[in-house]
Amino acid sequence: MQFEVTILGSNGAIPAYDRHPSSQILNYCGNLFLIDCGEGTQFRMNKFGIKRGHLDHIFISHLHGDHYFGLVGLLTSFNLNWREHPLNIYGPPALEEIINTQFKHSLTKLKFEIHFHPVLADIPRIILDNSQMTVETIVLKHRLPTTGFIFREKKNLRKILPEKIQQYAIPFEVINDIKNGADFTDENGRLIANDELTIAPPKPRSYAYCSDTIYTESYLEQINGIDLLYHEATFSEEHAERANETFHSTARQAASIAKAAKVERLIIGHFSARYADLSILLEQSRTVFPETYLAEEGNTFAIDSEVLLQKA
Amino acid sequence: MQFEVTILGSNGAIPAYDRHPSSQILNYCGNLFLIDCGEGTQFRMNKFGIKRGHLDHIFISHLHGDHYFGLVGLLTSFNLNWREHPLNIYGPPALEEIINTQFKHSLTKLKFEIHFHPVLADIPRIILDNSQMTVETIVLKHRLPTTGFIFREKKNLRKILPEKIQQYAIPFEVINDIKNGADFTDENGRLIANDELTIAPPKPRSYAYCSDTIYTESYLEQINGIDLLYHEATFSEEHAERANETFHSTARQAASIAKAAKVERLIIGHFSARYADLSILLEQSRTVFPETYLAEEGNTFAIDSEVLLQKA
Repeated sequence: MQFEVTILGSNGAIPAYDRHPSSQILNYCGNLFLIDCGEGTQFRMNKFGIKRGHLDHIFISHLHGDHYFGLVGLLTSFNLNWREHPLNIYGPPALEEIINTQFKHSLTKLKFEIHFHPVLADIPRIILDNSQMTVETIVLKHRLPTTGFIFREKKNLRKILPEKIQQYAIPFEVINDIKNGADFTDENGRLIANDELTIAPPKPRSYAYCSDTIYTESYLEQINGIDLLYHEATFSEEHAERANETFHSTARQAASIAKAAKVERLIIGHFSARYADLSILLEQSRTVFPETYLAEEGNTFAIDSEVLLQKA
Repeated sequence: MQFEVTILGSNGAIPAYDRHPSSQILNYCGNLFLIDCGEGTQFRMNKFGIKRGHLDHIFISHLHGDHYFGLVGLLTSFNLNWREHPLNIYGPPALEEIINTQFKHSLTKLKFEIHFHPVLADIPRIILDNSQMTVETIVLKHRLPTTGFIFREKKNLRKILPEKIQQYAIPFEVINDIKNGADFTDENGRLIANDELTIAPPKPRSYAYCSDTIYTESYLEQINGIDLLYHEATFSEEHAERANETFHSTARQAASIAKAAKVERLIIGHFSARYADLSILLEQSRTVFPETYLAEEGNTFAIDSEVLLQKA
C-alpha cells in the first residue's frame, strides 16, 4: 500500500536558489493530500507530474503567505479545468474570507463545492477520519495560530493465510471475523485458534508535519513513535537566537525533537534563504539524529518502517 | 536610453508547458515597472535576474487571478528583504481590499508604504506623469473592468552640437533654451538659427499593453503609431467563437489591431493552455501583420524604431 510524501516546496518565506515556499503532497494509495500550498504549488505539481484530479483534501498550517499564497491559483485552475467533485480545505478560519474575497472580486462562480473546515490551534483535534486514515492536528507555537498535522493509517486487519482457508474449509462469511481476530470452529466443532489462521498485520504507518514552530516539547508525546516526521529547521545553530526571535527552529532542535519522540526518520525543511548550501543544516541535525534527510524538492519519501528514499 | 520589456509570464489562466501567467517588466533606464503580476512572478524575476529593488511601480490590469495572484507574495518578499522606500500600485479599487485582507490575517506590518492608486476602467486616464514618461490607461473590453496601459516617453530636448558651443562661444546659461528650440544671438548681435546649432531629438518611444480584451476598435486611435504593442492573442482562428464567448482575442484579431493602428511591432501573448505549439498563433498573426513576435518568457524586446529582439 503506497504511502509516501513528495516535497514540492522546501524553503522559508523568501524564495531563493530555486527553492520554493512550503508545499507537500501525501499520496495514500493514489489519494492525494496537499499539505500547505505556497505560491507556485500548481507549477510544482505540474513539474513533478502530480495528478491533481486525485486531490480531495488540502491542509493549511497557518496564514503566513509562504504557506498558502498558491491556494487561490490552484482552486482557479481546478475550476478552469472543470473540476466538479467537492474539495475539502482545512485551515485557519480566516482563510475562508481570504478565498472568498478574491473570488468575489473576480466574479468567480466555482463549478465545484469547497467544504471548508475551520481549524483552531487551541488543542489537538481529529479533523479527518475515514476508512483509511485519521488526520489530527498538532498545536505548534509560532507567531500566528499554527497547526501541524499527523496522518495515521488505520489499523490493518490480520492477514488470513490462504492455505488455511482450504485446509479448514473456512466459509466466506466468517473470513472478516477471522481477519478481526476471531477464532474459528470447524464443522466438527473443533476450535482453531486465530493465531494458527492469520498473521499480524503490518503496523499502521504515520506521518507528522510540523511547520512552523519554535522549539517546544509540548507535542512530543503526540508524535511519539511516528514513522516519518517532517519538522521545520529554518536556521543553523549559528542563528539560534534568530530562530528564537522569529519562532522558528534550528536543525539541531528539530533533531532533538525527533530523537526525544523516538521517530523512525526525520525530514527537515523550511530553509532560510540565507543558506545556499544546506549541508550545514543536515550535518547539525545528523549529529543528534542520524536518520535525517533534507526536504529536497522533487524527492519522494516512503512512509515505511523500511524507509525508502526516492528521487522523483 | 534603455527602454525595453522582458516577458516573465506569457500564458493564459491555466499554467501549462512551463508557461506562466501574465507578467512583464518594463525597464526604462534602470527604473523598473511591473505590468501584471501572475502567480510566481517573483520566481520569474529571480530566474531572469531582475533587480527588484529598482521596482517602484506595479500596474494590474484586472482582477482575474492570473494577472495578480503573485502580488501579495512579491510584497511579502519586499517586506522580508527590508524594503523601505514606497511602492506605487495601480489597479482596480478592490485590489486594495484583497491585499489588506491577507496582510491583516498574517498580522503583517509593512516596513514600506504602499501608495495605492485605484484605476477605473471607464475612460482613458493619465495615471503616472513624471519627468521621463507618462502612463495612461486604455479601456479594454473583458468580463471584468480591465485596463491596458500605454507608456510614453516624454518628448526629448533637441541635441546641441558641441562644436557649435565652441564656435559661437555659447554661454552655459542659454544652453537649455537652445535645447528647447531657441535661436542664439552672439556678442556681435548676430542671430544664429536654432537649426544650425542643434539636431532634432529622437522621436519619443512608446509601449502599449493590451490584456485581456475581446476584439474591439475602441482604442485604435489611442494606440495609433505605438512603437511596440503587446496584445493578447489567447486563441487561434479555429477557436474564434470561444474567444468571443470568453471576451478574448485571436492572434489574427490582435494582428488586425496592430495593422489598423499602424504600430511598428507587435508581441502576442496570453496563450491558451490548449496550444502546446504556438507557431499556429504566430503564423496567423504574421499573415496580417508580419512584424509579430511571440511573448516567449525570458525574451527582452527593445522599444525602438530599430527594433532589437534579444534572448535573455
